[in-house]
Amino acid sequence: MNKIFILYISLGYICFACSGPQQEEIDTTLEHNEGNISGATMLLSSWEMKPRKRIMEWVEQVTDSLSLDYIPESDRIAVFDNDGTLWTEQPMYFQLAFAIDEIKRMAPDHPEWTDKGLFKPLLEGDVQGFLAGGEESLLALLKASHTGMTTEEFDQRVKTWMKTATHPDTGKHYNEMVFQPMLELLDYLQANGFKTFIVSGGGIDFMRAWAEEAYGIPPYQIVGSVGGLSYEMEGEKPVLNKLPELYFNDDKAGKPVGISRNIGKRPVFAAGNSDGDYEMLQYTSTGHGKRFGMYIHHTDSVREYAYDRESHIGKLDKGLDDAEKYNWLVVDMAKDWKVIYPYNKK
Amino acid sequence: MNKIFILYISLGYICFACSGPQQEEIDTTLEHNEGNISGATMLLSSWEMKPRKRIMEWVEQVTDSLSLDYIPESDRIAVFDNDGTLWTEQPMYFQLAFAIDEIKRMAPDHPEWTDKGLFKPLLEGDVQGFLAGGEESLLALLKASHTGMTTEEFDQRVKTWMKTATHPDTGKHYNEMVFQPMLELLDYLQANGFKTFIVSGGGIDFMRAWAEEAYGIPPYQIVGSVGGLSYEMEGEKPVLNKLPELYFNDDKAGKPVGISRNIGKRPVFAAGNSDGDYEMLQYTSTGHGKRFGMYIHHTDSVREYAYDRESHIGKLDKGLDDAEKYNWLVVDMAKDWKVIYPYNKK
Repeated sequence: MNKIFILYISLGYICFACSGPQQEEIDTTLEHNEGNISGATMLLSSWEMKPRKRIMEWVEQVTDSLSLDYIPESDRIAVFDNDGTLWTEQPMYFQLAFAIDEIKRMAPDHPEWTDKGLFKPLLEGDVQGFLAGGEESLLALLKASHTGMTTEEFDQRVKTWMKTATHPDTGKHYNEMVFQPMLELLDYLQANGFKTFIVSGGGIDFMRAWAEEAYGIPPYQIVGSVGGLSYEMEGEKPVLNKLPELYFNDDKAGKPVGISRNIGKRPVFAAGNSDGDYEMLQYTSTGHGKRFGMYIHHTDSVREYAYDRESHIGKLDKGLDDAEKYNWLVVDMAKDWKVIYPYNKK
Repeated sequence: MNKIFILYISLGYICFACSGPQQEEIDTTLEHNEGNISGATMLLSSWEMKPRKRIMEWVEQVTDSLSLDYIPESDRIAVFDNDGTLWTEQPMYFQLAFAIDEIKRMAPDHPEWTDKGLFKPLLEGDVQGFLAGGEESLLALLKASHTGMTTEEFDQRVKTWMKTATHPDTGKHYNEMVFQPMLELLDYLQANGFKTFIVSGGGIDFMRAWAEEAYGIPPYQIVGSVGGLSYEMEGEKPVLNKLPELYFNDDKAGKPVGISRNIGKRPVFAAGNSDGDYEMLQYTSTGHGKRFGMYIHHTDSVREYAYDRESHIGKLDKGLDDAEKYNWLVVDMAKDWKVIYPYNKK
């Protein structure tokens, strides 16, 4: 669970510029191109031509029943990391922002948090000071915000937070900060008979509360890190209580394990953005037949955030080194995406 | 994992009668009824009218968008136990039969098994003698037949066994011994927008090897007991190795936990056949709105097997006691099913 709770302190917060001439130029380019592309291509209209062509050529090959590379529909499993791949993960993992907001929300009922204790710096706005408390502080944060309640209560809390909380840099709700080109890619793959799954280091219950609406991906197609659960009777009513223990960490070599357990088929398409996704891409790309691996490279310091090899959040180092070896497409966000967020679209 | 490895020794093996006047009579009845029922009802044509009517009335209510009991398609989650609910589980769990057959198959490469050791009685045909070895023997059986290989190797072994092995009483392949009325129920629910899941105490990798073909249920809609897995590199090739440890036991109170982790939605329909399914049915039936719970009661000593409260396999005791309280349909296999197996159909 560490991944979720490592705050990227050192990266300077870069303000988000969501309008201006740059966007105008992009949309004009898009219109110019539209005459030459098919209806299907329009589904990837926020992608520049080169990466779009590469994705489409692969999809056309593997869905052509006369092709040697044909993949039957039942084997068209596509997996996507979430943080940094389907939505932004800066200046901190959104799940961490949720946890901190929950502490603030619950603080009035916990005077002991304000007067003393681990959460005092957090409640005074000093996130860095709080994190200086190390693992003990993070575990306390996780416990107080994610456990000691039923799965249904937790689901409601995440849904409420998602409707009310806003991102510190953009002022947008967090679920508005999903990547438009990736939404188009999900749609495009689904339209071509692929089952799309999220395979994330993030908490499974956190994602399931909003991902169906945001991505059209139902809860049973979401794989993530998992905490302890206990089935108990509250009088005549059975509930599932969330326990303060990490049951499964769906990160790094855990991702292929989570895929095997929750999906049960080896994917043929995988997209990620960090070294935490390396094994998932590797497991996908080394399967028999024509496979597709994709890394989202955060290169856009103007429209989103720029970070890679040295970042504490979403570190991408080994993945960049080995992209050529495994024939992974490295998507340069600044160059390859015409639009970042849905609200940037005209 | 105990459930899988408890052999039901005391039950006398009852020979299976798959043809004869009884079947003729059944099929005639079916034809007589066909004139009065709709096309949709035909999908449940192996069910007698009374349980069929009860199932259909519920489905019609919850899929009618004008009904107060309407359930949107995204929430139509139906869960099914496997052993004894979708296929036969006598005279021993089929997965146990697989494990024993695997030991016999591998024995020539393991002379030490024949000369001495835990597997000696098994290889001499004395299953009861082998099981007298208790937990140590069962764990050794599980280890030798289910671990120490990659997930892909295991999948191939199960597929090969399924094609070649036959049931001691019927002489049929094990995957032919699925219940025709339940296949129709799966089809009927799927046609009405339900997502159908298996939630079984059986091993997840064992089921996934054959269930897609047998039931039309893909691997990612199968929840089961889970062993340890390790992602490792064999040279340039990554593999998932099956480890000799039980990671999750998907039985009893584990079933709602497995449902929460792998499905992420509370089911609205649940079918089981033993007290191991009690919590799954309870969790389903106590959700908000109109829910459906069903117990398959093994009452047919002629066409299948008859057992319930005293059985070591598929014990159904508490479930029978509480069926009325939770409004569960108790399916009397002898009376409610016109046909048991697909190969009985005309």
